[in-house]
Amino acid sequence: MSGFSILSTAKAVPEKVVTNDDLAKIMDTSDEWITRRTGIKTRHIANKETTTSLCTNVAEKLLQRARVDVSEIDFIIVGTMSSDYQTPSTAAAVQGLIGATNAVAFDINAACSGFVFGLDILNSLLNQKVESKGILIGGETLSKMIDWNDRSTAVLFGDGAGGVLVSNQGSGQILSKDLKTYGDKGSSLTAGHMSKTDKNADIYFHMDGRAVYDFATHSVPASITRAADVAKLDLKDIDYFVLHQANARIIKSVSRKLGISIDRFPININHYGNTAAASEPILLEELTQHGTITRGNIVALSGFGGGLTTGTVILKY
Amino acid sequence: MSGFSILSTAKAVPEKVVTNDDLAKIMDTSDEWITRRTGIKTRHIANKETTTSLCTNVAEKLLQRARVDVSEIDFIIVGTMSSDYQTPSTAAAVQGLIGATNAVAFDINAACSGFVFGLDILNSLLNQKVESKGILIGGETLSKMIDWNDRSTAVLFGDGAGGVLVSNQGSGQILSKDLKTYGDKGSSLTAGHMSKTDKNADIYFHMDGRAVYDFATHSVPASITRAADVAKLDLKDIDYFVLHQANARIIKSVSRKLGISIDRFPININHYGNTAAASEPILLEELTQHGTITRGNIVALSGFGGGLTTGTVILKY
Repeated sequence: MSGFSILSTAKAVPEKVVTNDDLAKIMDTSDEWITRRTGIKTRHIANKETTTSLCTNVAEKLLQRARVDVSEIDFIIVGTMSSDYQTPSTAAAVQGLIGATNAVAFDINAACSGFVFGLDILNSLLNQKVESKGILIGGETLSKMIDWNDRSTAVLFGDGAGGVLVSNQGSGQILSKDLKTYGDKGSSLTAGHMSKTDKNADIYFHMDGRAVYDFATHSVPASITRAADVAKLDLKDIDYFVLHQANARIIKSVSRKLGISIDRFPININHYGNTAAASEPILLEELTQHGTITRGNIVALSGFGGGLTTGTVILKY
Repeated sequence: MSGFSILSTAKAVPEKVVTNDDLAKIMDTSDEWITRRTGIKTRHIANKETTTSLCTNVAEKLLQRARVDVSEIDFIIVGTMSSDYQTPSTAAAVQGLIGATNAVAFDINAACSGFVFGLDILNSLLNQKVESKGILIGGETLSKMIDWNDRSTAVLFGDGAGGVLVSNQGSGQILSKDLKTYGDKGSSLTAGHMSKTDKNADIYFHMDGRAVYDFATHSVPASITRAADVAKLDLKDIDYFVLHQANARIIKSVSRKLGISIDRFPININHYGNTAAASEPILLEELTQHGTITRGNIVALSGFGGGLTTGTVILKY
């Protein structure tokens, strides 16, 4: 098995912060209600920023922090469900803006599991060469698809981007993965509907919150358990569980079901809301920058959401 | 190097056929003008069909023709720039509809190079297991993004889907690949712009036809030449060049520049127009079904377009 070493992490979020109290001014909701149900206190909402500008900012920081020359990058993969264009892809736009002339760039869409799916895809592609480097970014401006008249979804989402610069050299490694798709449950979370025939089609988020909650709290612990089994790890050997930040209650439920202390499940949804494919790399950046996660740690990243999809990747940092 | 054997090919196109004469009734154009400039005579335009329904039809045919049980499929990848939803991905929807419960499903977006990029990604992922099978589909309903008031782009595009079912066993193999991204040229072909701030943003195709033509006629021969060099093949050893069907004049120019007879460059753009990520697998299906391409042939698949991107994959069929 070849290496998968994260040389740097980075994040970028829009300048504008929207608090729960701000939302309570424009819809029938309250800080108390949102906090109790989701754990969210604020979210960043793009005003002048775009998915492209956020992801480009992340890519530039990744290169600076890793001290890697842009010419060394072989792949740029962006996990997104809110690209600014259907073509060019966000990854192609980033590739052009940072001048990564040797990089093959494309977007992947696996919604909130996009970052974890992307880790496995990037790992496979980096294996093609003896020495190879790639950038994986999760980036979203979900606010483009928020229906501000629907208080059940409008309070949940935020904008942002995060990413990693990875080398297939060094001591880091992907120890195991468990990716799953449950397309039969796809209708419980939809967004960005583009249709010629359905007069009711709109681009907004539509969610059966109960169904998604039940799905996540059952399928995520199962996914983590399977991935740990493949890696021949006891759950207690995993230093941190970096979960998709969709809802603090989901994370607490996963912690309880696995019998692992909530201290091992870092949470930052209070600041950012649900940023889909961006949530795990944003959290990973904060944990790395603060020195919480360090070289040699065992980290389980676990995504879940639209598709429906779940994915766990366990890596030695 | 592990195997990459195409066990079956399939295509699906909308029922409705729109001729150049039909278009001449609603815009200032003519059959003669369109044919001379592009080689296109008709295109299929979705009425009741969707990207999901076309891709699902393709997946069902692929399984039937290969006599492979759906449970054996490990990956479903859809290359598309016109997914019905931003979430779920088209691949997840297909996965659910065909009941491919063991398949990991996600979309990739590399526009018209999506199918060729997908071949390389699928090849990498299939290498993860000793025995593995996957489905790769290019599927589009580009008509959702056609501005029928813009005669320079409206005549070019069509809807459809095509795909391959691939096993990493058997005698087929990817001999070489050459994938490139030119994000700095991305603005010469855009579609599906979704913006909160740009009041002029629309979802329609916008193309600098001259720039894209020049790009394709320069970069595609170069890409094919590089891929042949890597595979240590003489261009004359390649039985067929399956190019993205964007414009018959581009294909003829590539044939001339490579010094290879146009007979080795099959063309079906006259029937389908430019179907982006779907054009190569639709053509591959016809060539395989008609017995033109047979086991053991050397085939160069080459895509180019939005991003901008180019990609060539040379495979032993």
